[in-house]
Amino acid sequence: MLQKQIIVNGLERNLFVNEDDKLSTVLRDQLFLTGTKVGCGEAQCGACTVLVDGKPTFSCAVKIDRVPQGAKITTIEGIGTPDKMHALQKAWVYHGAAQCGFCSPGFIVSASALLAENPSPTREDVREWFQKKRNVCRCTGYIPIVDAVMDAAKVLRGEMKMEDLEFKMPADGRIWGTKYPRPTAVGKVTGTLDYGADLGLKLPADKLYLTMVQAEVSHANIKGIDTSEAEKMRGVVKVVTCKDIKGINRINGLAFPANKGDGLERPILCDRKVFQYGDCIAAVCALTQADADAAAKKVKVDLEVLPAYMSAPAAKAPDAIEIHPGVPNHYFTQKLIKGADTAPIYAKSDVVSIEHDFVTSRQPHMPMEPDVAFGFYNEKGQVVIHCKSIGVHLHKLMIEAGLGLEGDQLVLVSNPMGGTFGYKFSPTCEAIVAACVMATGRPCYLGFNYHQQQQYTGKRSPFWMNMKLAADKEGNILAMDTDFDVDHGPYCEFGDLVTLRGIQCMGGSYSIDNIRGEGRTVCTNHSWGSAFRGYGGPQADIITETAMEVLADKLGMDSLELRYKNVLRKGDTNVNGQEPDSFELANMIDALRPKYKAALEKAAKESTAAIKKGVGVACGMYGCGLDGPDSSNAYAELNPDGTITICTAWEDHGQGADMGAVGTAHETFARAGIILDPAILKFTWADTRHPVSGPAGGSRSQVMTGGAIRVACENMIASLGKDGGLMSYEQAQANGKATKYDGTFSVPGVPNDEKTGLGKPFMVYMWGVCMAEVSVEMATGKTHCDGITFMLDCGKIVNRSVVDGQVWGGVAQAIGLALTEDFEDIQKHKTMRGAGIPYCKDIPDNIELEYFQFPREFGPHGAAGVGEIPLVVPHSAVINAVNRAIGGHNVRRIPAYPEIVLEAIRQNK
Amino acid sequence: MLQKQIIVNGLERNLFVNEDDKLSTVLRDQLFLTGTKVGCGEAQCGACTVLVDGKPTFSCAVKIDRVPQGAKITTIEGIGTPDKMHALQKAWVYHGAAQCGFCSPGFIVSASALLAENPSPTREDVREWFQKKRNVCRCTGYIPIVDAVMDAAKVLRGEMKMEDLEFKMPADGRIWGTKYPRPTAVGKVTGTLDYGADLGLKLPADKLYLTMVQAEVSHANIKGIDTSEAEKMRGVVKVVTCKDIKGINRINGLAFPANKGDGLERPILCDRKVFQYGDCIAAVCALTQADADAAAKKVKVDLEVLPAYMSAPAAKAPDAIEIHPGVPNHYFTQKLIKGADTAPIYAKSDVVSIEHDFVTSRQPHMPMEPDVAFGFYNEKGQVVIHCKSIGVHLHKLMIEAGLGLEGDQLVLVSNPMGGTFGYKFSPTCEAIVAACVMATGRPCYLGFNYHQQQQYTGKRSPFWMNMKLAADKEGNILAMDTDFDVDHGPYCEFGDLVTLRGIQCMGGSYSIDNIRGEGRTVCTNHSWGSAFRGYGGPQADIITETAMEVLADKLGMDSLELRYKNVLRKGDTNVNGQEPDSFELANMIDALRPKYKAALEKAAKESTAAIKKGVGVACGMYGCGLDGPDSSNAYAELNPDGTITICTAWEDHGQGADMGAVGTAHETFARAGIILDPAILKFTWADTRHPVSGPAGGSRSQVMTGGAIRVACENMIASLGKDGGLMSYEQAQANGKATKYDGTFSVPGVPNDEKTGLGKPFMVYMWGVCMAEVSVEMATGKTHCDGITFMLDCGKIVNRSVVDGQVWGGVAQAIGLALTEDFEDIQKHKTMRGAGIPYCKDIPDNIELEYFQFPREFGPHGAAGVGEIPLVVPHSAVINAVNRAIGGHNVRRIPAYPEIVLEAIRQNK
Repeated sequence: MLQKQIIVNGLERNLFVNEDDKLSTVLRDQLFLTGTKVGCGEAQCGACTVLVDGKPTFSCAVKIDRVPQGAKITTIEGIGTPDKMHALQKAWVYHGAAQCGFCSPGFIVSASALLAENPSPTREDVREWFQKKRNVCRCTGYIPIVDAVMDAAKVLRGEMKMEDLEFKMPADGRIWGTKYPRPTAVGKVTGTLDYGADLGLKLPADKLYLTMVQAEVSHANIKGIDTSEAEKMRGVVKVVTCKDIKGINRINGLAFPANKGDGLERPILCDRKVFQYGDCIAAVCALTQADADAAAKKVKVDLEVLPAYMSAPAAKAPDAIEIHPGVPNHYFTQKLIKGADTAPIYAKSDVVSIEHDFVTSRQPHMPMEPDVAFGFYNEKGQVVIHCKSIGVHLHKLMIEAGLGLEGDQLVLVSNPMGGTFGYKFSPTCEAIVAACVMATGRPCYLGFNYHQQQQYTGKRSPFWMNMKLAADKEGNILAMDTDFDVDHGPYCEFGDLVTLRGIQCMGGSYSIDNIRGEGRTVCTNHSWGSAFRGYGGPQADIITETAMEVLADKLGMDSLELRYKNVLRKGDTNVNGQEPDSFELANMIDALRPKYKAALEKAAKESTAAIKKGVGVACGMYGCGLDGPDSSNAYAELNPDGTITICTAWEDHGQGADMGAVGTAHETFARAGIILDPAILKFTWADTRHPVSGPAGGSRSQVMTGGAIRVACENMIASLGKDGGLMSYEQAQANGKATKYDGTFSVPGVPNDEKTGLGKPFMVYMWGVCMAEVSVEMATGKTHCDGITFMLDCGKIVNRSVVDGQVWGGVAQAIGLALTEDFEDIQKHKTMRGAGIPYCKDIPDNIELEYFQFPREFGPHGAAGVGEIPLVVPHSAVINAVNRAIGGHNVRRIPAYPEIVLEAIRQNK
Repeated sequence: MLQKQIIVNGLERNLFVNEDDKLSTVLRDQLFLTGTKVGCGEAQCGACTVLVDGKPTFSCAVKIDRVPQGAKITTIEGIGTPDKMHALQKAWVYHGAAQCGFCSPGFIVSASALLAENPSPTREDVREWFQKKRNVCRCTGYIPIVDAVMDAAKVLRGEMKMEDLEFKMPADGRIWGTKYPRPTAVGKVTGTLDYGADLGLKLPADKLYLTMVQAEVSHANIKGIDTSEAEKMRGVVKVVTCKDIKGINRINGLAFPANKGDGLERPILCDRKVFQYGDCIAAVCALTQADADAAAKKVKVDLEVLPAYMSAPAAKAPDAIEIHPGVPNHYFTQKLIKGADTAPIYAKSDVVSIEHDFVTSRQPHMPMEPDVAFGFYNEKGQVVIHCKSIGVHLHKLMIEAGLGLEGDQLVLVSNPMGGTFGYKFSPTCEAIVAACVMATGRPCYLGFNYHQQQQYTGKRSPFWMNMKLAADKEGNILAMDTDFDVDHGPYCEFGDLVTLRGIQCMGGSYSIDNIRGEGRTVCTNHSWGSAFRGYGGPQADIITETAMEVLADKLGMDSLELRYKNVLRKGDTNVNGQEPDSFELANMIDALRPKYKAALEKAAKESTAAIKKGVGVACGMYGCGLDGPDSSNAYAELNPDGTITICTAWEDHGQGADMGAVGTAHETFARAGIILDPAILKFTWADTRHPVSGPAGGSRSQVMTGGAIRVACENMIASLGKDGGLMSYEQAQANGKATKYDGTFSVPGVPNDEKTGLGKPFMVYMWGVCMAEVSVEMATGKTHCDGITFMLDCGKIVNRSVVDGQVWGGVAQAIGLALTEDFEDIQKHKTMRGAGIPYCKDIPDNIELEYFQFPREFGPHGAAGVGEIPLVVPHSAVINAVNRAIGGHNVRRIPAYPEIVLEAIRQNK
């Protein structure tokens, strides 16, 4: 150990440290300054940035013995506190620059150093700084962050007042559609909101630390597990294996009836087989993390390694063995049969037809916060698991039988989360932690490192797709055929659903009368497929939108005009035969057209032999909700202190459930003439003890849970409304009125037919038309996205900051999806940087958004969802722009790494 | 476990807690809000006070499950921060109300609730509040605390400005003698200064928690120690016993040559015998405190219980066995032979003589902070122990051979400490912690609970004393005989020394030509004797001063006048035959006389049959330093940043080493015409790697280490002085000048002769004359001290707040010594309250101090010490006042519990 005297946030600290510990460990674990977050843990993401003698430093990477004696350390806690925020923190709140908020402390600390060095930076200076300092944001697309820094600089220069960074309440007292700051913003920008690892640190002293014993092969039979040596190691309380699990040791994948598997493929802890790299074979429970780590290395697993099938084609090969014996690797098929048989149409002489194929990637979600969970027996004897679940009731259902729990024996709660983007639509480590709690009787904590996050959470499922289109000579689409395999990894959970999503979204923006489609779900040994924003949408969109380019070329038409001719208009039905609830695509194209023409001219003018500029467009759509008759529940409760709790299980993974709940409730009261101080409306963190609100995925929550909140508040108003206000708690009591009001909301959807794929799966849709401008370096294939123009219809906007943020962030992830992000190589892609996360300068600063707020019948006060659409369209526009730049259609897989683009250039020649 | 959502300092906290944990554990261990201190741990001292929904609450006693959901908790961190202090915190700093500072957070939090409830309290309201809220301060006598609350209330009422609570630098820029706030004050009042338990919490995760296996009998032979079951317990890394100790397993008591023991009686961990209740037989090292505690219960110790000798008379009984076989229980004798044989004097017919006896108590120190230490191997392979040592170099010497360490293999460092009052002049748990570090190789932490603090640290040694005095009819003392036994418990360390102190101090204020004295040190099985402020002085003073009362009565003289006649005057020699350096006692009595007369009149007027008022006076003296030729070392170093480190091993246990060092250095520069900003002078926490400054006890440090600091600074000035200032670091470098300057200071004392007791033990003395006013409830014997008037000569005052605080606090402890404090009953007295700690209203608000600042030749800039004198005199005045009130001299033991006083009343009749 070393003694270190350092000055932390102005206080002299006398510390005793292990010389190999990282500065972040010292700050977090020894000083409990948990405002400093650890994301990647290897100096790639900047979440851990602190100042050491004024210099931004990756605290996760600097060993404490390299920190000089007497060094002055500044953490987010030293920048400002909730009651005394720094201008940067105020600006962050004002601009909605904290979404999940996990990166905010690091960014703000980093920005403070920039402004100390350069009080008058340009936007480009700010972007350069964050690029150089490797501050990664996965939520915002960086735009509001740069906005915030620019405004904070103005305040520090005295050109703007601190008060100008505070929300101004409109005269009518309504916050609907405004930039009212989200309720969790202050906690996020001051580092005072505790995420899972922070809460874990703050557990009582009797907690156990878990370390997973993970497979380092992708497919194997397990011959034996020997924990005897590990059990004897110091500090080890128990090594939990499948034998300790009281239930069926399976996570229920909730398989569709037509699924050839039973949905019970995925063990909580491996018993007979290893199905993918990273599968968890045992969990060591020990008194310290170091003890758990050391003992995990001593667990001996005897494996018979089997051939690993790392893609859908490989797993479908005739000689491939069944990954789950008894279930074929191709285990589910979804068909679509709409209108007339298509084969005769392609055969007609006056028809122009094309065939196109595309392969998509295993895009990793790359949340800033790696997966984390902890659990314990509570005072009622329930097993309580705190985690990053974005579907607490769903996950309870999926894991309880596996654990041998039932009824209310298992409670799931979602922590404040540093982003999930959908990966937590699947359970990850919840059941492992619960099994350890049950086996030891003690609180257990499990935190993934970033490699584990990458290697042992679900990924976007690659689609291997083929599309045929037929049109008449004027460009009216007459028929579509689709055929695709979904590589869904070894576990079926939602593999059938994402295949159905492909069927629902291919051609989904267009009016096509005759369609034949088939999607197949394939079991492989690569990472299991989980939800990711857009969920099937980006794959369906890119095959559709690249095929539209090929068709337009064959027709000799401008591709935007081909789209204009075919987009859904009032009276049309979509691919599922449903008439959707909004038809703004043609209006969007009308709005885009002049910008598109200007962009084409600019690209033509600026292109050189070395650097080609390209402009690409794409349309897209996505539904809001679970398929068919979705529903949600909430309650509103008037509290003795005058606040109103808006209670739901709407999980907030950074997308803004806090603001959605508060904003929807506030507007409901306002529409009844009751103008409340928004601060009295209290959002809740999701919990299975709350009303069943359904998962926070598929852009359903604002519609469904927003609807339930609306109903609950309306019920409260009907009972407690009085003279344009509400009764007080005391008045309600005195009048014998209830103070708690339930609300239930459901929609009359019709699931897609199992045979034909027809139905009314969603009662609310979102729409988008996107234009991307790119530059391609012809000698290397290196591509940069220079600008995005995005027309969207997400219904009425609840909160402008939240919606802008969702769109900017979705666009950034779409650019990553198009150009850089993948998790194909299990080792190379186990880091954020290796997996291609976009840094600040990888995302253009000019992202132009235009909203077409068509009010939705089924959305509360006209709102739709927003989460998925920004990641369904822009990547297609980017790839179309690349193909336009290089003059061909041969970029047919993503990410369009330079070598892919180079190969396409070669093929185009 | 329970989930608790509470609002802590304005932040919503989502916590997971063990329902049986105390709120303090949750705040400290789970939220790292270490500003909340745990003292007694059982709701008796208020150090842990926090507000729960505005109400002061003992966080150490309230179980977290009793804290309501949503409760608002305010800790000291929520009252104010170093850069934004609350008016109470500013007032605390201004008035020097934080000495050791351990009680400050609790007091300030408590006071904030008072002012919320009553914005305009009277002083008595404030005292009532702290009495009711059980806020205990052991350092200040409560006076400056009440001052601070009164001023903070004025600020909050707008009657005073916040700036009025800031130190105003005098025009000459000199801080000598001012109330300049001590350097550690802000950290203490904001809860940001880390004490041992706070530092321990912040150790890295691989630390081990120690639990001592302690004897529950007072005397026994050890037949066997079986650790096998404990070793197998979960989380146990090792159970350390005497077998694991590499050295001689003895603490070296540094016995005097004439001591019949070798000073090696005290084992680090018991091997052959148990010598006192609480002796440590083994130490369990485990990964959590709970694991260590559980395992400690499983260590089996086979004991052969022996008769326990719980007092000096019992241990001297003819049939008593030797506690340390081979060494007689009466193991040391100190004689005093001055002047003529005294026996013939008593025999003379014109001589008035008396004989008197007195027994003193085993006063417990009762620091607010229980004992604590931690240790580790540092990067150089040294064993580093952080502890409450107030003699780091001394203790290194005492324990290193026992551990098998030598040279620089052992490093001792003193933490910020919540008071010691001398108990840490002896090592306590340092060697145990070091043995565990050596046995495990890992960082180890040991924190005592308050029962362990009481039962297993040293206590003031009871003296069983007899005194004879002879005077002529005019009251001139002609002869004194003293005879006493010192019950020093089982370990000899400093038992010889404290016996010598008795010899040095009995009759020490008076000019007595003919003296015969003998003191004997006796080994017993009660708690080991350690230093306590005054160290031998209070015992010597009370036999002297009660005997003077008896003599005065027999002479028919007023006792103040008897003292006046006999106090030392220029040309006199003291009991050791030395002419001291200052003779202010007569001047003090002159100053006291009118107040004394007024008090006598008032007492006579106010006495009733039920409540008798009494006035008592006493004189007293104490030396500053170790006996004989004491010395100390320091250095001053100019740092690159322009600050100057004043480096010493002057331990700060709350007495003000920080201010002593800075104040002495500042005045040294000022006297050379160099006026520095005091903030650039940096105090150091004591460390064996610093210059040898000797222990911080015996009021020696300001004289000896202050002297060394003076010399070091003078050496710096001689080299770096330039144009009325100092060279900068760069200038010094450029001129080839050293930046570090050593200073050594020593005094030409002469130790007391082994045979005659004569010598010049101290070159600097302190003096005091004290008057106490008391009320005695005649029916019950209940006594209250109503007022203290105290004349002191401590030389020139370095810092007025520090000196006032030392005196007020010493007076409070003296009142406790006189009336309430003891550690005779090992069970009943194991708590603060049980052991009689004075609460606010037990100490009078009217303590009048008057200083006679006779400049000392050997003190730096004329200063003497101050720590001991306030605890040497007032208790004698109190007991004299009680005896005067009840009309007799039969209170002849302390504490004068009501039953003792009642018995004396009975005897007086």
